[in-house]
Amino acid sequence: MAYEVRNRLHELRRAFHRHPEPGWREFRTTARVVEELERLGVDEIAVGRESMATDARMAVPDEDELDSWLERAREAGVREDILERTAGGHTGVVGVLEQGEGPTVALRVDLDAISMTESTADDHRPAAEGFRSEHDGYMHACGHDAHIAMALGTIEAIQGSDFSGTLKVFFQPAEEISGGGKAMAEGGYLDDVDYLLALHVGLDYPTGEIVAGVEKPLAMAHVTATFEGASAHAGKAPNEGGNAMQAAATAIQNAYAIPRHSDGMTRINVGHIEGGTASNVIAEEITMEAEVRGETTGLMEYMRTELERVCYAAAEMHDCDVTPRVISESPRADSHPALCDLIERTARGVDGVERVVPTAEVGVSEDVTYLMNRVQDGGGGLASYLIVGTDHPTSHHTPTFDVDEASLGHGVDVLAETAVELSQRPV
Amino acid sequence: MAYEVRNRLHELRRAFHRHPEPGWREFRTTARVVEELERLGVDEIAVGRESMATDARMAVPDEDELDSWLERAREAGVREDILERTAGGHTGVVGVLEQGEGPTVALRVDLDAISMTESTADDHRPAAEGFRSEHDGYMHACGHDAHIAMALGTIEAIQGSDFSGTLKVFFQPAEEISGGGKAMAEGGYLDDVDYLLALHVGLDYPTGEIVAGVEKPLAMAHVTATFEGASAHAGKAPNEGGNAMQAAATAIQNAYAIPRHSDGMTRINVGHIEGGTASNVIAEEITMEAEVRGETTGLMEYMRTELERVCYAAAEMHDCDVTPRVISESPRADSHPALCDLIERTARGVDGVERVVPTAEVGVSEDVTYLMNRVQDGGGGLASYLIVGTDHPTSHHTPTFDVDEASLGHGVDVLAETAVELSQRPV
Amino acid sequence: MAYEVRNRLHELRRAFHRHPEPGWREFRTTARVVEELERLGVDEIAVGRESMATDARMAVPDEDELDSWLERAREAGVREDILERTAGGHTGVVGVLEQGEGPTVALRVDLDAISMTESTADDHRPAAEGFRSEHDGYMHACGHDAHIAMALGTIEAIQGSDFSGTLKVFFQPAEEISGGGKAMAEGGYLDDVDYLLALHVGLDYPTGEIVAGVEKPLAMAHVTATFEGASAHAGKAPNEGGNAMQAAATAIQNAYAIPRHSDGMTRINVGHIEGGTASNVIAEEITMEAEVRGETTGLMEYMRTELERVCYAAAEMHDCDVTPRVISESPRADSHPALCDLIERTARGVDGVERVVPTAEVGVSEDVTYLMNRVQDGGGGLASYLIVGTDHPTSHHTPTFDVDEASLGHGVDVLAETAVELSQRPV
Amino acid sequence: MAYEVRNRLHELRRAFHRHPEPGWREFRTTARVVEELERLGVDEIAVGRESMATDARMAVPDEDELDSWLERAREAGVREDILERTAGGHTGVVGVLEQGEGPTVALRVDLDAISMTESTADDHRPAAEGFRSEHDGYMHACGHDAHIAMALGTIEAIQGSDFSGTLKVFFQPAEEISGGGKAMAEGGYLDDVDYLLALHVGLDYPTGEIVAGVEKPLAMAHVTATFEGASAHAGKAPNEGGNAMQAAATAIQNAYAIPRHSDGMTRINVGHIEGGTASNVIAEEITMEAEVRGETTGLMEYMRTELERVCYAAAEMHDCDVTPRVISESPRADSHPALCDLIERTARGVDGVERVVPTAEVGVSEDVTYLMNRVQDGGGGLASYLIVGTDHPTSHHTPTFDVDEASLGHGVDVLAETAVELSQRPV
Repeated sequence: MAYEVRNRLHELRRAFHRHPEPGWREFRTTARVVEELERLGVDEIAVGRESMATDARMAVPDEDELDSWLERAREAGVREDILERTAGGHTGVVGVLEQGEGPTVALRVDLDAISMTESTADDHRPAAEGFRSEHDGYMHACGHDAHIAMALGTIEAIQGSDFSGTLKVFFQPAEEISGGGKAMAEGGYLDDVDYLLALHVGLDYPTGEIVAGVEKPLAMAHVTATFEGASAHAGKAPNEGGNAMQAAATAIQNAYAIPRHSDGMTRINVGHIEGGTASNVIAEEITMEAEVRGETTGLMEYMRTELERVCYAAAEMHDCDVTPRVISESPRADSHPALCDLIERTARGVDGVERVVPTAEVGVSEDVTYLMNRVQDGGGGLASYLIVGTDHPTSHHTPTFDVDEASLGHGVDVLAETAVELSQRPV
Repeated sequence: MAYEVRNRLHELRRAFHRHPEPGWREFRTTARVVEELERLGVDEIAVGRESMATDARMAVPDEDELDSWLERAREAGVREDILERTAGGHTGVVGVLEQGEGPTVALRVDLDAISMTESTADDHRPAAEGFRSEHDGYMHACGHDAHIAMALGTIEAIQGSDFSGTLKVFFQPAEEISGGGKAMAEGGYLDDVDYLLALHVGLDYPTGEIVAGVEKPLAMAHVTATFEGASAHAGKAPNEGGNAMQAAATAIQNAYAIPRHSDGMTRINVGHIEGGTASNVIAEEITMEAEVRGETTGLMEYMRTELERVCYAAAEMHDCDVTPRVISESPRADSHPALCDLIERTARGVDGVERVVPTAEVGVSEDVTYLMNRVQDGGGGLASYLIVGTDHPTSHHTPTFDVDEASLGHGVDVLAETAVELSQRPV
Repeated sequence: MAYEVRNRLHELRRAFHRHPEPGWREFRTTARVVEELERLGVDEIAVGRESMATDARMAVPDEDELDSWLERAREAGVREDILERTAGGHTGVVGVLEQGEGPTVALRVDLDAISMTESTADDHRPAAEGFRSEHDGYMHACGHDAHIAMALGTIEAIQGSDFSGTLKVFFQPAEEISGGGKAMAEGGYLDDVDYLLALHVGLDYPTGEIVAGVEKPLAMAHVTATFEGASAHAGKAPNEGGNAMQAAATAIQNAYAIPRHSDGMTRINVGHIEGGTASNVIAEEITMEAEVRGETTGLMEYMRTELERVCYAAAEMHDCDVTPRVISESPRADSHPALCDLIERTARGVDGVERVVPTAEVGVSEDVTYLMNRVQDGGGGLASYLIVGTDHPTSHHTPTFDVDEASLGHGVDVLAETAVELSQRPV
Repeated sequence: MAYEVRNRLHELRRAFHRHPEPGWREFRTTARVVEELERLGVDEIAVGRESMATDARMAVPDEDELDSWLERAREAGVREDILERTAGGHTGVVGVLEQGEGPTVALRVDLDAISMTESTADDHRPAAEGFRSEHDGYMHACGHDAHIAMALGTIEAIQGSDFSGTLKVFFQPAEEISGGGKAMAEGGYLDDVDYLLALHVGLDYPTGEIVAGVEKPLAMAHVTATFEGASAHAGKAPNEGGNAMQAAATAIQNAYAIPRHSDGMTRINVGHIEGGTASNVIAEEITMEAEVRGETTGLMEYMRTELERVCYAAAEMHDCDVTPRVISESPRADSHPALCDLIERTARGVDGVERVVPTAEVGVSEDVTYLMNRVQDGGGGLASYLIVGTDHPTSHHTPTFDVDEASLGHGVDVLAETAVELSQRPV
């Protein structure tokens, strides 16, 4: 890869890193992607509403929340035509490049960041080199910034290659909250896709390693539960009302204690909680955000059902009401062995790639599974979810997460060369 | 009481009700009190900083929080000279009326509201009659609005009475968070007080009833604890990091389970919680606000010590750190029997008072105990904390709390006539 | 009190101490009491079944358990005629002494011990001086041995006194499990009683002190709950079955966390648990024994209801069944002020008594309240539950509990002289 | 297999079923095995102490417990010479058959039953057909009775076969408590073994199915923890002492909530609990029995370490002491692929076997792993842990567990023919 191209990848990644936006609020990120696609001169750009099935969206925030991020994007100078097309929780883009006869190869990356305050430590490169998050409380702590850069780089690489066919690149919103995958899967653009390549950086694989296909991405459900009791004066009437705080604490303790399952791996986490008013008032309302995962869709459903039971029983125990709500879900999907084989062979020839792992199981969930299942079960195509290794100093979803930019080129090369290969020797 | 006076009391109470402000942020409330005192022509008005011992303040919010409420008050047209004197968490006033030779009688009321969204129900009088809280999320749900109105009414009543001596009225900030009592107790104005009358409305006593003195207001401590763990990806690395959510849930369950004590009543409540970022991230930080109470200062200390132990053990269990912090405390103090006797006798003669209860134990805490102990233990004076009964449709600290304005006059009469009596026949 | 009499009291107490028997199983203890009553030549001895209302018994153990203790007593040489009358859970005696015209004064003591292994420490007097429990796992750790000795001593003292009237002494079984009080209260012997004196040693009052009457003995309910789930292989099928262990743990945590009540003191304890089979089997059945207490009968009922709710919700949470069962209950009863006054005056004249406390509140429950309520509410008589202070090195219900035998004489004198006084100057 | 032989297998299995004995207490079972081996005329019988490394035993019960089972065996007529050799927790046998030149093939089965009361339901065959457990509270609920019968049947089958070499059959005690595997592994008889075949019936595989080799038997540790607090009177001194009941409940709740691990499957169970004395005494001592498992030895150690942490923190929270003790442990071991292949091929030819599964992962732990590791890592031999499918109406470790006796013959045939094959064509 040319020095210049590599530099451009780094710049792009840092630009996206500076402006993290959470799911369905990636107005500025979407706009930048659109501008890059225009610059690259692709044949079609489906922005926002055009790129997805509106009704299939999940976990869309409320209007006020959406508006405040849209306003922030507007103040940052985002083009009005793009804001119009993405307003109301319709971020995301599909770019289409037509380059002769041949199969339709799709690439899917994700746009959103997570709620986390980025480290200011001196040895955290984004802080040290000046591209730390400028949106306080939000951070690209999972590497999606790198994903976007690689996708754009791949388009450019394809344009200069022997690839013959159609390339569709899906820039999906709201992956972290499993909100956007289903909407993009059902938006129409995926229907004629022959091969789908999705990717993730890192996941504990170092720079120089490629995993050709992830097996068993965990099925997942994101559930919120609001415990509603009755407030009372904590000193004068401790026995009155229903204590939502006690209900929530009981639920959390018992949620983590849902039995392991003999059929395989499960996960449970309560990752956010908020409620009550003051120390001297029995808490009337507590809301917690939880998620469950399972090695199969069935295991995820086991966990979800048990979590619901735990919530109901905890509420009953403390004379509260609760209605657990499933905010979003994603099924399990597997990478196709034949496609994995091709990726593996191709990756072995890529400069800088020192080791290729045929397949791996990793404990992640991903709503790309909606897209994979659409392509594989629906359309008779093949899909693979591959990992581009990158050195990351700390785990994903931590304040000091960072990627090794040297890996950006590896990703571009593997993706582009795989696409070329597929256009020439379909599997 | 004249129709006109009574009407004025109601209007005052409703005015304060419309603009609830939380502890140390009662800028608008303080200003209105100052203006009323000016209108009444009292002899001295000590505003904000002048009325208290700055260093003895507890539970003062951070600068940003204080500033945003000050700004709100400024925008509502509050006088700059008052804002200057109350800025930086120095709300509160002492008004002094000198009316001849005689003892110094003090009256103490409180200014602050609580964090609670007031009901909009049709049968909630403030909503129905248009004086519901205009500060969303805050509400006079404990009756302090009535207290202020009664204090102002009492000054007026004293001015037209045979009272001979000095009347000092303490309008104390931050009672709900036990933050202001100590500061006012040590501000100097209390040092020469012979008799201190403090009051509370309601507490389950209906309109027409007076409790001459509360025995055993519970000692109290307000404690916050922030559990700090380490975040990790909930799907990929559930075993990494330290889960602050589990630590907090364990602490809450065990806090409520701190054993009852053979020496008397205790209380525990965790009234507010907040933390974590998203459902797919192991929570790194959770903060909870708790309080403990005890029938004696020793019992409160037992509860506080146990709560701290619970927090430390819960943190250790989930590989987190925690430092419980005592935000504010208040000791126990008792009403003096001799003063209660006089109030009881006086109250029996007040129009509209149908029943007088000599003394009562109620499960409340109050930082007026700092003032009571200062007068009684320090200065050789007498103090009583009395209850002015009022019909209240629901408990204190609930969204539909309201007072019966008919009781405002009872309060004024009992207080004024007790002061007159004390000036003529000291006990 | 003569040296000889005092010595006899000590011997008696030690004899009972050596052979502790739990509730409804006091075969040997009952027999020894009968023999002592025969020796004293009282006028009537109602043994076992004759002394009580069989149907009103509570917390009676099962046949096997009763039989094994009866057998043990038989092997120790207990008379067959006594065993016959007490078999099947009918331990207990009433002794009647008729000594001329006058009121009927009743005395009530209790016979049973608790399940606790007595200390073998050198500084534990019963161990050092050779009268430690000979029934392993059981111990007079609450002082009932001293109560029995005092009751027998009081009869002897009355016989040599000016007392004119009838003395009835109730030796009640199963006090610790609140099982025998109701049965004795309804057995007929109490119906014509004018004055009832019940007593307890210690309760933190030292030798030389007497409390004339206990106010507010806590109402109590003893509740057991068996959680029934389904067993499964813990390694192979962790998700199957219903885990009774988790249900019980959840119930215990939440039971202790039942909110304090504004109306007064409450208590909760889960004192015994047992269940499950092996570490590699999901526990199918766990039984726990709990008790709740309250300052009033209503507060006890609040606790009992909440405990039941906690049990049901905990079972539901872990897919188990549970049926909480109330094993026994006792109401609240208060000592009568007039009778307390007389005891107080009398006690002041007793040799060795240095301090008399008119009344006290102590956090105990006692099913003597059934007898007290029967006498006071039913029959128009008066009752008092008094405390005979005794130095005790450690708390009641601990393995090193012991009484100061010097207090035995105080008890006898206070009781006997109060009875004499009542027979001469009824209140 | 001849009708007669099959009948004998059934009878043997039922005989063992009738007399279940728990780990290290299989006196009667051992004796019966010895008698059968004598009847079969094997060349060497190492009984009890002779068959194992005494010091490597784990989880041996205390003397009293051992003696009471030995006494029970003696009363049932067990030969004194066998009792002598097995006394003191030395149950178990190794039988050696020498039949010409060739490799040494070992077979390992287990002798012990579990603590569970067998069902008396009419549709539970052992109850209906009169061979239900005669030891109340104990039951062959895991199929070890079938294992023993199959081992004895296999010896007989080998005797009538072309097998050329040495056959060693290990009848191991105390498998359920992971107590006997290490001792037998280090007892010397295993040192020259070339092939080790271990087996288990059922595990959800129906009659007619064989699994040639289990992959990943979970590593396991059995841990007990006794929480020691201080007792106190629950009514009078609820705040005194340290509540071992609350400590245990907190530990249990948090033990099940130990986070899942990204590296693979884990297990946790608290299967037995006992403690406290009575409902009105704060519990002084509670003992719980727990176990942890992991897909690897490292994962088991993660769980054990976390469990210990949970215990310590729970004790600290309630002012108790605790020392978690590891009673027994077993590592992970895998079946060797080459041996599995041979078993698979052989099994396909066995009459009645309809399906052969090459390998399977099942969530069990087994201390046969000590023997497997000894043979494979130490001696250069091969080992496999195979499953003989059997219809079982309910799960292992449930009161209605039963095996389909039709499968006994399948087991014998697979084992015997595999041994013959190995003696002729070593892998």
